Amino acid sequence: MQIAKVRGTVVSTQKEPSLSGVKFLLLQFMDEEGLPLPRYEVAADQVGAGLDEWVLVSCGSAARQVAGSEHRPIDAVVVGIIDTVNVDDRRLYNKRDDYR
Amino acid sequence: MQIAKVRGTVVSTQKEPSLSGVKFLLLQFMDEEGLPLPRYEVAADQVGAGLDEWVLVSCGSAARQVAGSEHRPIDAVVVGIIDTVNVDDRRLYNKRDDYR
Amino acid sequence: MQIAKVRGTVVSTQKEPSLSGVKFLLLQFMDEEGLPLPRYEVAADQVGAGLDEWVLVSCGSAARQVAGSEHRPIDAVVVGIIDTVNVDDRRLYNKRDDYR
Amino acid sequence: MQIAKVRGTVVSTQKEPSLSGVKFLLLQFMDEEGLPLPRYEVAADQVGAGLDEWVLVSCGSAARQVAGSEHRPIDAVVVGIIDTVNVDDRRLYNKRDDYR
Amino acid sequence: MQIAKVRGTVVSTQKEPSLSGVKFLLLQFMDEEGLPLPRYEVAADQVGAGLDEWVLVSCGSAARQVAGSEHRPIDAVVVGIIDTVNVDDRRLYNKRDDYR
Repeated sequence: MQIAKVRGTVVSTQKEPSLSGVKFLLLQFMDEEGLPLPRYEVAADQVGAGLDEWVLVSCGSAARQVAGSEHRPIDAVVVGIIDTVNVDDRRLYNKRDDYR
Repeated sequence: MQIAKVRGTVVSTQKEPSLSGVKFLLLQFMDEEGLPLPRYEVAADQVGAGLDEWVLVSCGSAARQVAGSEHRPIDAVVVGIIDTVNVDDRRLYNKRDDYR
Repeated sequence: MQIAKVRGTVVSTQKEPSLSGVKFLLLQFMDEEGLPLPRYEVAADQVGAGLDEWVLVSCGSAARQVAGSEHRPIDAVVVGIIDTVNVDDRRLYNKRDDYR
Repeated sequence: MQIAKVRGTVVSTQKEPSLSGVKFLLLQFMDEEGLPLPRYEVAADQVGAGLDEWVLVSCGSAARQVAGSEHRPIDAVVVGIIDTVNVDDRRLYNKRDDYR
Repeated sequence: MQIAKVRGTVVSTQKEPSLSGVKFLLLQFMDEEGLPLPRYEVAADQVGAGLDEWVLVSCGSAARQVAGSEHRPIDAVVVGIIDTVNVDDRRLYNKRDDYR
């Protein structure tokens, strides 16, 4: 999984029928120092992530291991909203710091 | 999924029999600022995307999660035509602006 | 799928038994301007592509969606010989120009 | 598989239900000279790897070939703690040297 | 598949039970000119490749299409020992030249 930050949304009405009701988030990947990488992914969201939140994103066939998405043509999904990231015994990210 | 712009077509007559009738689009990937990336993909199209339209493309085994393509040797598919992309509460792309 | 040019062959006699009789082509990936990319792939061929021809190559699990290859440990396959590539209403490649 | 070093942990409480109880490690990929690469992965751990240990990480659908993870939306897993890495008849890494 | 050269071995005793008895080789990827790429992979070996030999490596789910590995969490496997590589009608590599 990669660490990513929710930066926006993508809307499509003319799409594969199985994608009805799926919310697409635009995610910016973050590196292990907490800085943005020049890489993004549009991922299906089923955990209700909000703008600027840090999330875990799974890519590839893993994206279809989520209830209801078994047969959807998606290759990326948000699997969790991140509370904390610790690197080398240092706190890199704490959701509470961003949202207090 | 990645955001891509339809730039052209690829035609092949001598091909795997299961690919009969599949339309192949040449897609240029776009970054999260709306600029072209040095990366493209040839993807099967089943949503009827036209030249210069922005689309969502799924790669890998996801490409076979589309009715009729379950057993086709394809690794990329257009899953939707994009209406809008919003990044940081800013409108990055609006299909109506391009096609009015 | 990616656009690639057939540049050579790879021969292996001591190999997985299921790969008996499979022809391996060395493919140079081409970019959307028709220039060679610094990336290649060794792919199984079942369409009979010849040296210098442009082909479509599928990677990943798609490579096993070809009759007879369902259980082969291959991750790339030539799925078609390209006739034409059109980019921005311009003809980038035409097989006839190369072979007349 | 890639060689990686355990650098930290990622905690998420609001996540896909099937991920309950899964421990997520932040892994820094190492190159074949034993130097850190600018690439990381957040991987599920089932072998009990500790901080600074070198591990083998499998990516993609392989991550679900582990007892209990067959239907989890994960794309990376720690499959082993590395004892030794030998390159060109030279010992690149020996776990005992780090932990005596 | 990619062309790679066997550079070493990786040993792990504390690992996923299904990986018992699997030999892990450290492979350096080679480019289409026969020069080493800054990319490696640790792959399971079932063809008995030796140090410095050139091999074909398959990545992703293909690694599990080998007898006995169907349910192993591996994402790379050596599928053959290379005899010859021909590029542009030139012999790039011949195993006999290295081993006479």
